[in-house]
Amino acid sequence: MPFLSGAPPFRPENPVFAIILGNTLLSTVPGVSGAGMSPEKTVLTPVLDSELITHGEIRSRKWKPNTPTGCPTPAVITRAMMVLLGMEPLFVNAGLTTRPVVPCLDVYGEPGKDPREGDAVPRARELFARGEQVGRFLSRSADLLLLGECVPGGTTTALCVLRGLGIPASVSSSFVNNPVALKEAICARVQERIRAEDAGDPLDVIRIGGDPMLAVAAGMVSAFKGETVLAGGTQMLAVAAVLRGLGKKVPSVVTTVFVRDDPTAGFAATAATIGTPVYYVDPDFATIGHEGLARYCMGEVKEGIGAGGAMFLARIMGKSEAEIRDRLLTTVSGY
Amino acid sequence: MPFLSGAPPFRPENPVFAIILGNTLLSTVPGVSGAGMSPEKTVLTPVLDSELITHGEIRSRKWKPNTPTGCPTPAVITRAMMVLLGMEPLFVNAGLTTRPVVPCLDVYGEPGKDPREGDAVPRARELFARGEQVGRFLSRSADLLLLGECVPGGTTTALCVLRGLGIPASVSSSFVNNPVALKEAICARVQERIRAEDAGDPLDVIRIGGDPMLAVAAGMVSAFKGETVLAGGTQMLAVAAVLRGLGKKVPSVVTTVFVRDDPTAGFAATAATIGTPVYYVDPDFATIGHEGLARYCMGEVKEGIGAGGAMFLARIMGKSEAEIRDRLLTTVSGY
Repeated sequence: MPFLSGAPPFRPENPVFAIILGNTLLSTVPGVSGAGMSPEKTVLTPVLDSELITHGEIRSRKWKPNTPTGCPTPAVITRAMMVLLGMEPLFVNAGLTTRPVVPCLDVYGEPGKDPREGDAVPRARELFARGEQVGRFLSRSADLLLLGECVPGGTTTALCVLRGLGIPASVSSSFVNNPVALKEAICARVQERIRAEDAGDPLDVIRIGGDPMLAVAAGMVSAFKGETVLAGGTQMLAVAAVLRGLGKKVPSVVTTVFVRDDPTAGFAATAATIGTPVYYVDPDFATIGHEGLARYCMGEVKEGIGAGGAMFLARIMGKSEAEIRDRLLTTVSGY
Repeated sequence: MPFLSGAPPFRPENPVFAIILGNTLLSTVPGVSGAGMSPEKTVLTPVLDSELITHGEIRSRKWKPNTPTGCPTPAVITRAMMVLLGMEPLFVNAGLTTRPVVPCLDVYGEPGKDPREGDAVPRARELFARGEQVGRFLSRSADLLLLGECVPGGTTTALCVLRGLGIPASVSSSFVNNPVALKEAICARVQERIRAEDAGDPLDVIRIGGDPMLAVAAGMVSAFKGETVLAGGTQMLAVAAVLRGLGKKVPSVVTTVFVRDDPTAGFAATAATIGTPVYYVDPDFATIGHEGLARYCMGEVKEGIGAGGAMFLARIMGKSEAEIRDRLLTTVSGY
């Protein structure tokens, strides 16, 4: 397998790597999200991961950047690539339960609520507009917007939104065993609410069953004037589907081969339905010489907080596969 | 008088105009600040002014963007210049009592406390470090950092910090009659606290008697790699003095002739003591044909939220004096 499938659009002169942080209270439902040591603690992951990427360590809490099984957080991959490129991502706070410990471009949203109970993102339309403002602002200097996200539980809200837009999607998971039945049960309740309202507008679908990241991401991409590449798995397909539903240009998506190879996700088929060009990054973790990273090949974690996009960026900015893999191994071994 | 005194350093290719928003609870002390309809309401001014600059109107509250005497807020000037240049400022939230209604780069600070009672900015050192992160991030794309601020009551904290750094300064005011005696009384109490600690480090002086803007601004400038111009009056002289005290390069300051001509401020003398090069903008409001703007010449408002800097930026970006004045008149007449 090549490291990067498909020819990237161009080598950017001034890329901005923005990572949207958000919460949905769905991640606290036991079994929904593997992005944290316990269901209640999943909500902290965006704040801790952004701290790790910025400082190379977690200072604010006692916390090991691993899953309970010893798999390194994808934030370590993003961190390694930022160090390699000598750059820093721009974190965007779309709506978090806890206060970040690094500067974020904050749109002053709220965490997404449980969409089974009522509207998940009551201010979806306003958050979209604030995302547009951010996109316009970034257009002044950047020629590429690489957009990642960190929303524990976000594959479930992505499923609700994709289905709500009429796309027969399934979604990936950070668990080895995707809790498909639980996600489908949640999704079924949300589809009832969408049908009850006869909601067709993508921003209404986000309001009813999405999360704040989806609204902000769609707004940012919508207003950004340069090239956009969405960095993530099925959650970013939901963003692409929202943009298509709004009649906007559909951006490409970059993700890891671990998402592509998740049989429960149907990533390639959904991308084709939406009409999203896709790049896959294959860091060949099976041969990299690190047990935790090798677990990615066995279906754990797979992707997150722009990890696939960060490796993609390093490659299109001219770093060799060897440089990228060396840096990954050095960085991950340090934790 | 020329529109702009002194030759600007260069015509930037990619300027970023950042405006730091912050609060100090000193503005709620009756008589300290004229930046609001009442002492309690002064704390809202940064949020309302940033909304006005972004959207051209205040949607979030019933509010007229004027002083009680009918003088337009300087935010209208900043708004006019942003429209003329087709750009948007980057708002930085250093620590506010209320939630902004436009996206801000948030460093997650707190409003400054009353420095007579105890430390005003307990996390000054951390906010400085977060400002440095912001400055580093902006360095990737911008060649000029024009840095404005909006901190009601901030001339009083600036006075405390300037004196704490051993500079025999006085400061300006948005009132026609500068409440010098009240400011001096507050400052005297703060100097006692500084002496009691024998605090010499500028970040300790900010901790004891400053406001969050001062810490964040100093950090941003300290880490920004391109040219920096501070946009504001005596508050920005305090930032320059902090940088000098830290052994950093002292940036230039741009302000209006209304600040220069405030006899109670002693602006030029303080700037000379600190070693700050100064640009003055003279929009000749006496002849512009608007009663409210003419009041600036009589000593009201004078400056604020980067208004002088916004006019400076328009000029160095190639707009003519006539274009600038026309746009100011059209915009101000719309309110």
